[in-house]
Amino acid sequence: MLSQVYRCGFQPFNQHLLPWVKCTTVFRSHCIQPSVIRHVRSWSNIPFITVPLSRTHGKSFAHRSELKHAKRIVVKLGSAVVTRGDECGLALGRLASIVEQVSVLQNQGREMMLVTSGAVAFGKQRLRHEILLSQSVRQALHSGQNQLKEMAIPVLEARACAAAGQSGLMALYEAMFTQYSICAAQILVTNLDFHDEQKRRNLNGTLHELLRMNIVPIVNTNDAVVPPAEPNSDLQGVNVKAALWALQGGTSVVIANGTHPKVSGHVITDIVEGKKVGTFFSEVKPAGPTVEQQGEMARSGGRMLATLEPEQRAEIIHHLADLLTDQRDEILLANKKDLEEAEGRLAAPLLKRLSLSTSKLNSLAIGLRQIAASSQDSVGRVLRRTRIAKNLELEQVTVPIGVLLVIFESRPDCLPQVAALAIASGNGLLLKGGKEAAHSNRILHLLTQEALSIHGVKEAVQLVNTREEVEDLCRLDKMIDLIIPRGSSQLVRDIQKAAKGIPVMGHSEGICHMYVDSEASVDKVTRLVRDSKCEYPAACNALETLLIHRDLLRTPLFDQIIDMLRVEQVKIHAGPKFASYLTFSPSEVKSLRTEYGDLELCIEVVDNVQDAIDHIHKYGSSHTDVIVTEDENTAEFFLQHVDSACVFWNASTRFSDGYRFGLGAEVGISTSRIHARGPVGLEGLLTTKWLLRGKDHVVSDFSEHGSLKYLHENLPIPQRNTN
Amino acid sequence: MLSQVYRCGFQPFNQHLLPWVKCTTVFRSHCIQPSVIRHVRSWSNIPFITVPLSRTHGKSFAHRSELKHAKRIVVKLGSAVVTRGDECGLALGRLASIVEQVSVLQNQGREMMLVTSGAVAFGKQRLRHEILLSQSVRQALHSGQNQLKEMAIPVLEARACAAAGQSGLMALYEAMFTQYSICAAQILVTNLDFHDEQKRRNLNGTLHELLRMNIVPIVNTNDAVVPPAEPNSDLQGVNVKAALWALQGGTSVVIANGTHPKVSGHVITDIVEGKKVGTFFSEVKPAGPTVEQQGEMARSGGRMLATLEPEQRAEIIHHLADLLTDQRDEILLANKKDLEEAEGRLAAPLLKRLSLSTSKLNSLAIGLRQIAASSQDSVGRVLRRTRIAKNLELEQVTVPIGVLLVIFESRPDCLPQVAALAIASGNGLLLKGGKEAAHSNRILHLLTQEALSIHGVKEAVQLVNTREEVEDLCRLDKMIDLIIPRGSSQLVRDIQKAAKGIPVMGHSEGICHMYVDSEASVDKVTRLVRDSKCEYPAACNALETLLIHRDLLRTPLFDQIIDMLRVEQVKIHAGPKFASYLTFSPSEVKSLRTEYGDLELCIEVVDNVQDAIDHIHKYGSSHTDVIVTEDENTAEFFLQHVDSACVFWNASTRFSDGYRFGLGAEVGISTSRIHARGPVGLEGLLTTKWLLRGKDHVVSDFSEHGSLKYLHENLPIPQRNTN
Repeated sequence: MLSQVYRCGFQPFNQHLLPWVKCTTVFRSHCIQPSVIRHVRSWSNIPFITVPLSRTHGKSFAHRSELKHAKRIVVKLGSAVVTRGDECGLALGRLASIVEQVSVLQNQGREMMLVTSGAVAFGKQRLRHEILLSQSVRQALHSGQNQLKEMAIPVLEARACAAAGQSGLMALYEAMFTQYSICAAQILVTNLDFHDEQKRRNLNGTLHELLRMNIVPIVNTNDAVVPPAEPNSDLQGVNVKAALWALQGGTSVVIANGTHPKVSGHVITDIVEGKKVGTFFSEVKPAGPTVEQQGEMARSGGRMLATLEPEQRAEIIHHLADLLTDQRDEILLANKKDLEEAEGRLAAPLLKRLSLSTSKLNSLAIGLRQIAASSQDSVGRVLRRTRIAKNLELEQVTVPIGVLLVIFESRPDCLPQVAALAIASGNGLLLKGGKEAAHSNRILHLLTQEALSIHGVKEAVQLVNTREEVEDLCRLDKMIDLIIPRGSSQLVRDIQKAAKGIPVMGHSEGICHMYVDSEASVDKVTRLVRDSKCEYPAACNALETLLIHRDLLRTPLFDQIIDMLRVEQVKIHAGPKFASYLTFSPSEVKSLRTEYGDLELCIEVVDNVQDAIDHIHKYGSSHTDVIVTEDENTAEFFLQHVDSACVFWNASTRFSDGYRFGLGAEVGISTSRIHARGPVGLEGLLTTKWLLRGKDHVVSDFSEHGSLKYLHENLPIPQRNTN
Repeated sequence: MLSQVYRCGFQPFNQHLLPWVKCTTVFRSHCIQPSVIRHVRSWSNIPFITVPLSRTHGKSFAHRSELKHAKRIVVKLGSAVVTRGDECGLALGRLASIVEQVSVLQNQGREMMLVTSGAVAFGKQRLRHEILLSQSVRQALHSGQNQLKEMAIPVLEARACAAAGQSGLMALYEAMFTQYSICAAQILVTNLDFHDEQKRRNLNGTLHELLRMNIVPIVNTNDAVVPPAEPNSDLQGVNVKAALWALQGGTSVVIANGTHPKVSGHVITDIVEGKKVGTFFSEVKPAGPTVEQQGEMARSGGRMLATLEPEQRAEIIHHLADLLTDQRDEILLANKKDLEEAEGRLAAPLLKRLSLSTSKLNSLAIGLRQIAASSQDSVGRVLRRTRIAKNLELEQVTVPIGVLLVIFESRPDCLPQVAALAIASGNGLLLKGGKEAAHSNRILHLLTQEALSIHGVKEAVQLVNTREEVEDLCRLDKMIDLIIPRGSSQLVRDIQKAAKGIPVMGHSEGICHMYVDSEASVDKVTRLVRDSKCEYPAACNALETLLIHRDLLRTPLFDQIIDMLRVEQVKIHAGPKFASYLTFSPSEVKSLRTEYGDLELCIEVVDNVQDAIDHIHKYGSSHTDVIVTEDENTAEFFLQHVDSACVFWNASTRFSDGYRFGLGAEVGISTSRIHARGPVGLEGLLTTKWLLRGKDHVVSDFSEHGSLKYLHENLPIPQRNTN
């Protein structure tokens, strides 16, 4: 019944007024009133429904991100959205939420129209109450008992309910819309009204006039005069049919669940904002595959990649390195386009990160060849061999994780580097770059696929369309096995928050400490502090907090450190204990847990090595922490007790790095506690599988009275060629 | 102003009617109307507020789980909950949700009372609209433009707004409560009403009468007659003060955020259901530490455990094993209590899992001694050594993960086993057992702590109170590093869903396949199928789908398999292709992705090994998959290409097990793709850290023109003593 109005309302709009009638939001109802279905079915025999509507005037949107441009929005509410689960009474919370959202959109200058139901449910509730009251239950009310709830409810006739409910329902809508200074109007229709050409034209004119006057039309079926409904269960099918019908008229449709308590408060506005809520129907096919299809391609491409010989994977990477230098001009041309478009919109440091150059491409190619070299012994390495019984041998071997999603910002040089890491480790890859580097990323991805195609695995690396939202990608847990964000720690934090059930590898914070012990050597301290803090203060492995043993205050060593920091123009923040020791203290820290990422340093005083360790555990981020001392026992105590990914003795925090650790290709630095921790090489992109080769071995032979016994002999492991 | 009513309404209730007045729900307001604060401040000087109310009649609840027993509930709405962010107009969606929730609770037989605000906001909206209309903006409405929204809004006087808004607000509440057949009543009060003893008594009488008649009193401040308000920002403080005041009267209070769109639809009902929403205030201190304190104790206890010598950790486990046999009588006595309480409430198989016996305790002790043995070489093992430069040596060593949360169902024997695994790996442990095993778990935990105390690390293993909800625990991501569910695959799935940002180790499904190739040996197939399917069909590593090469249909081998399955009384489900080959097929499968966990088996036909692999990738759960063939090439192709944790050749699926693999102590079987995969030994409870020992090394010495070069020499690793 409702779908009927919703459909017919559109036809004339398309012919007369569009192209700005574009988006229709339809709530999926778990429980459409049976009357709806009957009419939908009979309509399919009525000519004017099946005739495609004029497409010349309107064209539906190709992608959700365009929905925010929708000018006219029809919200059709299924009965299950409007009524409560017990089918008696309205779901007031949801209904009011919907009115609130419709009002927000209307007050943004859009033209909103509501197609509703619920009069029967509302009336049922009303009538039940009246009947009960007339059964003189007033005494029950006065007895303080809740007999009202326990009484049998008489079976009420639907049309009577509708009649009783209609006025109250509209009064309720009216009252609610008044809250937002919005005027609403009631339109009641029946199926027959659409069969009459004149009536249809009148209805159309009325709707137009209302919309023009900034009034929200509320369309409902005139349930009090229609024939009783038949039950039917194929509800989803009806909605889909209705959506397809609307599409023919050039209208985009989203069908979403309007009853889920977590979303019902913002489902309509979410849809208009382009979020992936419900199912989006459009007659315009978006260019290229969907991200789900890309995930499938990356999965199967990755599996093929994993079965290649290590030399073949290295060949692909070498070929990509060649292409980066051979196709230099084309790459730089695409990059120039990005730079031109970004000019004036991006700050200078961001433009610098966006720009490519011949020398950047050359060093990128060199990096790729290093990755190719370290890839030779990654996939298929045997980690463990056990003879379980005679002729029953177990092997644990390294295999790729599966499909990686790498999300990176501005820097397009990230793309070939990450692609090479995925290829080296035999993983499928989804790449999500920033919009600002779209041209550069496109050509670099094409070259990657060209390199991959020499061994027939072109589809293993996929570039995700810039329109896809990162949050939507982070929810594809059936498709993606590991997410690696490459960029600012803010990006990493955002992704960690957005990822639903998919592990994220990356460090979100690097709050590194250096503890200067009472036994520290004067010569070393200044060198180590300068290198840790000043060499590259923006790095995550730069020093943020210097912990000084109490006994060192007012010693030459202490003065030397402060002098050096002054010369290097490092701004000092005093921890509370440090400040209490000084007459004139520098500004006190706001928080001892701060990553400055700049020429700023927090200094705090500690009583001893245990106090330093406690401070690090309380305020650190388990990234990299250092002790400076000449006392080996104190150093070993610190190394054993500090619970961080990297713990150093008399060395700069800045050594915390995959290349400096000699891991070959660096995937990143992880502050996670499982899988990989600290600087991560290619191994971080691998998992293992167990291969068992038997003759006809069954476990029942190994039972207490069985014929066989477990041997569990360790077998020699083929020598590992590190690097 | 609102807090005032909410407070004063309670005093007489306590004196006359309680003990059933117990729970108060207070919404935290981001923006309490300034008038409220003024009054709260002046009250603190009024004697009757500071005098503790009679506690003999009522006592507040000690724990949230008791809130469901609350008989009378006062919902106080902060202004920010009632009004929209722009302070103009009501937040209709939220308001209606609240009415809906209050109605649900009222109709459960509770006595609900609403303390509201919002008259000013409502009136502001109304008056603005009227003023604009009187400025003859009707022409603007008719021009089709949205000039209405852009017009300057005159500053409206708050009392006038209140007067205009009060009637409309009540009409709205009335209309909404009518939906649920609930009668509401209006009570308007001012501060002065409470100073007058007679008025207070009258008010009290009225409220009681209303509640007795099943009517919901809606209390609001008579804003039209009160003095104008002063601004104030210490809102949280006011709410907390109000809560403390209510506590003095023996009333439990929860202050929660009522504006978050994700929760506002069910925040009140959630609170009454005992969920951890907002802050719970109670005068009754719960016995024992909070779960947050337990997390801290497990963390620091775990760190101490990790620094013990491996022999000391083994000693603790041996001592625990001794206690299990020495204290057998006490354990069995506690277990008997659990069994008695569960009698009639639990099904026979569950009772069996719950019950302990001397022989169970003995084999538990044997298992513990095995764990002790395998613990010797777990923590602190060197995995990699690299000479980065002269006197600069890097070491990667195994360390514990941190704090584990292990959630287990009924079986109390899980507790000592899991505790031993945590102790062996140096991890802190939070244990969450089922309510039905409370007595058994308590004594087993006491014995564990007794064992731990021989090396002063008693607190490393904590038993979480049975009242704590699993979902709440799964959100403590700052406290817990890894969750291990031990129980049904439903439990694992639930936990995986509930865990927010904490990795979960466990397999949720074991859909294992066996592919019988055309080159399979007749003798082996029947043996392997029987062992895989029939030996223990409830296990996750039992066979679920048998894939048969097309050429084997209608061969003696095929008939043998079917005969064996008949003898073993295995119910056969036919895959669609298999069904199409048969004249009289068994029942067709509902889904090819089914874990039967019983004597049921799906049979499907495949064309070749590639087809089998595709089927496994599409319908499997990457647990364990087997090929049966005499052709080594086909077998190796299968082993390389099947992307599962365990891939076997001519061996039963049932070998997929930590003990059978020779991993020593088994932690579980993981179907995750990162960290640990397949059967997991103690290694799965370990991570690594990097130790770097230098003299005074800084990275700037290694720069292009620096004095040093990276050596990256692999150094010999101390021989690993596997088991």
